[in-house]
Amino acid sequence: MAYGATFPLWRAAAEPHWSAFTRHRFVETLADGTLPRAAFLHYLVQDYVFLVHFARAWALAITKADTIVEMRQCAATVHGLIGEEMRLHVEICAAEGVDEATLFAAEERTENLAYTRYVLDAGHSGDFLDLLAALAPCVLGYGEIGARLLAEAADTPYRAWIEAYGGPDYQAMCAEVGRLIDGAAARRLGTAPEDSPRWASICVRFRTATRLEVGFWDMGLRP
Amino acid sequence: MAYGATFPLWRAAAEPHWSAFTRHRFVETLADGTLPRAAFLHYLVQDYVFLVHFARAWALAITKADTIVEMRQCAATVHGLIGEEMRLHVEICAAEGVDEATLFAAEERTENLAYTRYVLDAGHSGDFLDLLAALAPCVLGYGEIGARLLAEAADTPYRAWIEAYGGPDYQAMCAEVGRLIDGAAARRLGTAPEDSPRWASICVRFRTATRLEVGFWDMGLRP
Amino acid sequence: MAYGATFPLWRAAAEPHWSAFTRHRFVETLADGTLPRAAFLHYLVQDYVFLVHFARAWALAITKADTIVEMRQCAATVHGLIGEEMRLHVEICAAEGVDEATLFAAEERTENLAYTRYVLDAGHSGDFLDLLAALAPCVLGYGEIGARLLAEAADTPYRAWIEAYGGPDYQAMCAEVGRLIDGAAARRLGTAPEDSPRWASICVRFRTATRLEVGFWDMGLRP
Amino acid sequence: MAYGATFPLWRAAAEPHWSAFTRHRFVETLADGTLPRAAFLHYLVQDYVFLVHFARAWALAITKADTIVEMRQCAATVHGLIGEEMRLHVEICAAEGVDEATLFAAEERTENLAYTRYVLDAGHSGDFLDLLAALAPCVLGYGEIGARLLAEAADTPYRAWIEAYGGPDYQAMCAEVGRLIDGAAARRLGTAPEDSPRWASICVRFRTATRLEVGFWDMGLRP
Repeated sequence: MAYGATFPLWRAAAEPHWSAFTRHRFVETLADGTLPRAAFLHYLVQDYVFLVHFARAWALAITKADTIVEMRQCAATVHGLIGEEMRLHVEICAAEGVDEATLFAAEERTENLAYTRYVLDAGHSGDFLDLLAALAPCVLGYGEIGARLLAEAADTPYRAWIEAYGGPDYQAMCAEVGRLIDGAAARRLGTAPEDSPRWASICVRFRTATRLEVGFWDMGLRP
Repeated sequence: MAYGATFPLWRAAAEPHWSAFTRHRFVETLADGTLPRAAFLHYLVQDYVFLVHFARAWALAITKADTIVEMRQCAATVHGLIGEEMRLHVEICAAEGVDEATLFAAEERTENLAYTRYVLDAGHSGDFLDLLAALAPCVLGYGEIGARLLAEAADTPYRAWIEAYGGPDYQAMCAEVGRLIDGAAARRLGTAPEDSPRWASICVRFRTATRLEVGFWDMGLRP
Repeated sequence: MAYGATFPLWRAAAEPHWSAFTRHRFVETLADGTLPRAAFLHYLVQDYVFLVHFARAWALAITKADTIVEMRQCAATVHGLIGEEMRLHVEICAAEGVDEATLFAAEERTENLAYTRYVLDAGHSGDFLDLLAALAPCVLGYGEIGARLLAEAADTPYRAWIEAYGGPDYQAMCAEVGRLIDGAAARRLGTAPEDSPRWASICVRFRTATRLEVGFWDMGLRP
Repeated sequence: MAYGATFPLWRAAAEPHWSAFTRHRFVETLADGTLPRAAFLHYLVQDYVFLVHFARAWALAITKADTIVEMRQCAATVHGLIGEEMRLHVEICAAEGVDEATLFAAEERTENLAYTRYVLDAGHSGDFLDLLAALAPCVLGYGEIGARLLAEAADTPYRAWIEAYGGPDYQAMCAEVGRLIDGAAARRLGTAPEDSPRWASICVRFRTATRLEVGFWDMGLRP
């Protein structure tokens, strides 16, 4: 999946972390169904709290956007996260007897705290593009994982998860986010972004967030 | 209109500015139809830009909320502002030959800058309640003005404006915001908010924003 | 005064506002001594509150800097503002019977609110360079005014003010801020900053803050 | 060490994490001299980067303070951190052949990222008191550890570290920070802070930061 012109460049610059994230054992065992149920549920609880703070970071992006169209796109993403994506978590956890208030109050693991607060700080310390570079690995990496697993995965109890991220709604959102990034990059870095003096530091944002994704999966395997 | 328990207390503490805002000559001439068209259009252009930054402040509120329910309410308000309320401005201005890109790029008058940036700074320097106290005068004051004018106003070319703010959708949003404020106040100030040591400074937030509303109407009369 | 390579470019792009600010009647009557005492004292009170919020904006710059050297420079500027520059205000006002607590609690005029909160928002919505572009007109404009008046001004009761801004300490601080800006611009816009796609929006930051300086002097003449 | 009236209450509410932090094996082996040199140097490098971001959080506090006295205290703390406290790190590391630029560019460990970005987010999402509650464990915990070790520690190669935190300058700073906290708490929570509806959430801030201190020491033992 390309999701625009900028993302493939960032992704290449984030290796070997990008592959470690998208081909993580957590992902592969989701696909083949061998991921222990306890690990999956533990991950879902932490991921719910992750999404709370990730939605806060997208809300911060609304405050930093340059155009009304960008504001609307970021607002739609906030809605997608706290209106739609969390529903998957709430429904699966509810079936296990865990309600949404419990999810919201779950104690965050260090790997979780590190990731979301890093993204928020990327926004506070930098501009709209710095924030997008820190937001991109999660959004687009899940898109990439979802699309691949939808095509590859055999029968697995985690089919609903795969369909959520590999399905057309989430993929359309990724394409939209890819365009948002390309527009913001063009307005700040010009037509040869890799020649911009900011390029290296933007890539560090994306790379650091990718590294924190790997840590999040690692944590997911340790309920 | 009460819009909850906290708002009437803040409103009383903001006099005489509150009456100067809600009974301003701009409002009264909107109601009786004598407001010059040029003043109304000038106001609409500035108010469009106001709503851009006001929506940014509500997005900031998402990042400062305590609960997922509050996050969803603030996100719904952002959507209401940049999805719905601005449509009134865009449609009326389009009929006059002014497109949305022109609205977005309009040079902000000092009174406009002062108001929205004050609200944003209330959020950055304080907590969720400080921000709500600075957001409240515009949201609930327009609700109060709209409800009164809907009941009182004679025939006026500004009927659409009155119906937008006096109508059931906007009034329901005001009731919701009133509840949001009551919840946030209870969680921070307790059951006797006026006895809290923070009460005076919170009232200053509301009062200053009300004073800036008066300045905004004054500016509206000077195209 | 050049104060580096970037400032002269920004200044040129901010005309005619830059001349309106640095050659304002308030400035010229400070120089020839015809500025009414009441206007000067009114200005000093508002300027004290201005410096409180301007120091907050320089503190925000500490949180957005790229290097430890920049952090130290911004911290030195905060110290210069709230440790040194305000002393002039406090001493002159004390001689008139107005103490520092009264200064701190003074009600801000709209022109004052608009300016400082705009600068703070430039920092929150953008990156370090956006913030510096909004901070620069005040710091460097006062440097330019002080240097010119020190050379030109005849006998005037406002000599202490002129010496504060025209004197070597303040001028050295301006040279330092000029270097800070050049470094931040080089790291973000490269060696041909005027060709960067961000150039226009950065100039708007500087220009808007300059426009707000003019409004501040206008307000100074209306005690 | 009491460091004011509020800190002992927060500290008690943070058990058993508080004891786990202040009696951590890292601390005890610093005192008896058995801490491996490699662990100490690894810790110093991470702590240098920690202090960069911790200073940013104190700079954020300047932007959120209520009074000019508080602004000056927070600015003095920023200066103490990036002007004084870091000097210990820079000097010890320089003696080992590691220069300051290398320190600044060191890759942050997850435990480090989690802690500083959590503190910054406590400031952005809350008010001045929320931020102080997240800043307090590090400042005052190091004060408590330093004072105890200065009295108890036998001969150890880490004497300079103990004297830096147990010595009169750092202890005076802790007393000052304790007063700052008491003032901010009084203005927001009143004379019976433990009865305030905000008390529990403030204690969570302090407790979470304390938990992250434990994680930081754990990381220190794993070079």
